Amino acid sequence: MRRLLLESDVEVEPLAELLLFLADRVDHVHRVITPALAAGALVLCDRFADSTIAYQGYGRESDVARVRRLDQESRDGISADLTLLLDCPVAIAATRRRETTDRYQALDAAFHERVRAGFLALADADPRRIRRVDSSEDIARVRDEIACIVDAWLAERPR
Amino acid sequence: MRRLLLESDVEVEPLAELLLFLADRVDHVHRVITPALAAGALVLCDRFADSTIAYQGYGRESDVARVRRLDQESRDGISADLTLLLDCPVAIAATRRRETTDRYQALDAAFHERVRAGFLALADADPRRIRRVDSSEDIARVRDEIACIVDAWLAERPR
Repeated sequence: MRRLLLESDVEVEPLAELLLFLADRVDHVHRVITPALAAGALVLCDRFADSTIAYQGYGRESDVARVRRLDQESRDGISADLTLLLDCPVAIAATRRRETTDRYQALDAAFHERVRAGFLALADADPRRIRRVDSSEDIARVRDEIACIVDAWLAERPR
Repeated sequence: MRRLLLESDVEVEPLAELLLFLADRVDHVHRVITPALAAGALVLCDRFADSTIAYQGYGRESDVARVRRLDQESRDGISADLTLLLDCPVAIAATRRRETTDRYQALDAAFHERVRAGFLALADADPRRIRRVDSSEDIARVRDEIACIVDAWLAERPR
């Protein structure tokens, strides 16, 4: 579903798009995340609730409070303990893209500026959970910073 | 989307199923209902919010209050002025089905009893809007009763 949505260029109402992503989230939480947590695994996700709020809320300029409420209803209490925000200026991100296959990559810089501003607002509001990593740096430095944050978090986290 | 969902026998989490139907609802409201109302049309729907609450809430035995909240968020203030509930015992309905192509028709009688109880609870809570028509009667009598309710409603409705 998520892949279909990302690869399709069909126009969809922002609220319908949000509900489709949330249906995928419910399925992912139910099939993958909840069983893995129950088995004691440490779960890494490429995207989760913050991306929904940044893309479907801030990016699409829809009612962010409604996006938050609907997101909250769809996660069954599952939330991230640590979130890494790989952040860089929109112009730098644009130079790094290989192909434009994704429905968001095809959108204009203004859309991506709103998404970025959304992520930064989320990080400002929850600095303990969301750590911003400057991804305009070269890949080795980004990797080292991530390793440093994750190692410190693993050492400190409650067991 | 709605047809795909109804015709598929893929197992989907009840909450994911709800979100998929609501995405279809948003699309339908946006593309069909809102423009028609704006043009002054009288809109008839085969199914709307009550069916979502009866099937996805009561039928699936999921959190009815959550189904109501999510449904509410997805309708953008659009609601039915008059709802006709064609109601008959589950056993009678079963004898009238032609084929079992729909994901709900394939479910057991207990599911349909819960859906029916859900619809009746909704009708009890909102008797001015939801009129129960006894559809165990023969088709000519059902038609006459509907015509009578609709004519009275059209005569009385505010313009």
